[in-house]
Amino acid sequence: MKAIISCCQTIPIDNKEINLKKAIRVIRQEAKKGSDIVVLPEMFICPYCHASFIKYAEPDNGSTISTLAALAKELKIYIFAGSIPEIENHHIYNTCFVFNRKGEIIGRHRKMHLFDVSIQNGISFKESSVFSAGQSLTVVDTEFGPIGVAICFDIRFVEPFRLMVDRGANLIIIPAAFNMTTGPLHWELAIRSRAVDNQCFIVACSSGRDTHAKYCAWGHSSIVNPWGQIVGDLNEKEGTLQSTIDFDEVTKVRYELPILSSRRNDIYTINETGGKHFEYTD
Amino acid sequence: MKAIISCCQTIPIDNKEINLKKAIRVIRQEAKKGSDIVVLPEMFICPYCHASFIKYAEPDNGSTISTLAALAKELKIYIFAGSIPEIENHHIYNTCFVFNRKGEIIGRHRKMHLFDVSIQNGISFKESSVFSAGQSLTVVDTEFGPIGVAICFDIRFVEPFRLMVDRGANLIIIPAAFNMTTGPLHWELAIRSRAVDNQCFIVACSSGRDTHAKYCAWGHSSIVNPWGQIVGDLNEKEGTLQSTIDFDEVTKVRYELPILSSRRNDIYTINETGGKHFEYTD
Repeated sequence: MKAIISCCQTIPIDNKEINLKKAIRVIRQEAKKGSDIVVLPEMFICPYCHASFIKYAEPDNGSTISTLAALAKELKIYIFAGSIPEIENHHIYNTCFVFNRKGEIIGRHRKMHLFDVSIQNGISFKESSVFSAGQSLTVVDTEFGPIGVAICFDIRFVEPFRLMVDRGANLIIIPAAFNMTTGPLHWELAIRSRAVDNQCFIVACSSGRDTHAKYCAWGHSSIVNPWGQIVGDLNEKEGTLQSTIDFDEVTKVRYELPILSSRRNDIYTINETGGKHFEYTD
Repeated sequence: MKAIISCCQTIPIDNKEINLKKAIRVIRQEAKKGSDIVVLPEMFICPYCHASFIKYAEPDNGSTISTLAALAKELKIYIFAGSIPEIENHHIYNTCFVFNRKGEIIGRHRKMHLFDVSIQNGISFKESSVFSAGQSLTVVDTEFGPIGVAICFDIRFVEPFRLMVDRGANLIIIPAAFNMTTGPLHWELAIRSRAVDNQCFIVACSSGRDTHAKYCAWGHSSIVNPWGQIVGDLNEKEGTLQSTIDFDEVTKVRYELPILSSRRNDIYTINETGGKHFEYTD
């Protein structure tokens, strides 16, 4: 089974309407080029800063979600809508909504691991001063099988990736926006190692780099195969990336280099210990 | 706290006496250069092939172990003795013995994950046709704190690394011998990602490359810091690599980029589910 997938590496400005229009334009373009699945970057709808997270927050029946739902239905594609600040009961989340070909919401991943870092001579940021953390893993059911979702800093953690793969995900989609400190250090390493360790495809969609922005994104959206090879990537500029994913490659690599089946479950296990699941995600 | 550590990237031939003599010579050399800890590669004592594993197998009171124990005592250093085929009750293991400055065995890691792969147009090998698998993680107590041990294919698995770090290991030592298929694809990726994900030092000691050998090793012994940066490495030839490890770097990176402390233990956990521990390893 194969899926055609696109990453849209857009650069958001401080104007929701313009950001949404741009997203619509590139999604239409990628759908026209035949993509089954189109992915947007983390916070494609607003600048990556605390003030914007509050100013741009919207509930799950807000204009961004309803617009993208209608677009997925019209174009008959899956949309993994990067992330937006989602507000519910006075809590704001960094949330990726996922739409199927009917425009139905089939997943809502709230970033589980908030980006609170303070690196000497590098990036400092504290997402938790605005965001609440998500309470669950997200694996959505699609015609291509289960697909996992993680947002940016979530990629730092080996456990959720193992668990998503154990739920059947052969592809994990990661809206992200690494920065100029951790990007050169760890971006490629993280996406490639998650693919190799879990013998799955990784599609990591970053925003493009605006050197005038307070938070300067690394870019380099990439599609990685289960051998850990980058099969397509972008540089730091705005752009789109389309690739065909052949899920038979997952079967082949898991047979030839049997990592997943060689785990010693008699000595160690990774378990889900809780978390709140949205009913449509399971 | 700092430790000076050496990797000895030797190339074994089909003669135990000569291999052991060479190991002794390079261990003496590195001790003279001030190393606290000297590491040998996987199967430093014999060619990496099934016939040798059987022919060279020795019990834990065999000549290799007793010689290295005496050497550690004489030189007052820690030796992580790569691995040898260890025989016990008619089972052969791929085992790393660890000696302290008194020449006492303080750890015995039996490779937990055997290397059974069959890659199209690449390497095929089946360790399990000779070896029995180890039944436990290994973390040894030293004056530098707990140090974890993994052998080659063990590096493929995220779980034991997490668990060794949770037992306090800020340094994990990996005797190894990747090959000409998986070496270029995954060696650097594996050692760097285990360091970054677990915010610890990784010291990976490979055998050197003998292009005439049936199993051709990748080489490239490396020392990686908790940022995932290679602070020292070798090419494919025989040679040694010495580096000073400053354990304060572990504290710094875990503070600045808090991955380990940001794990969501309310949503997932990795647990030890069993395994047989040697009494001196815990």
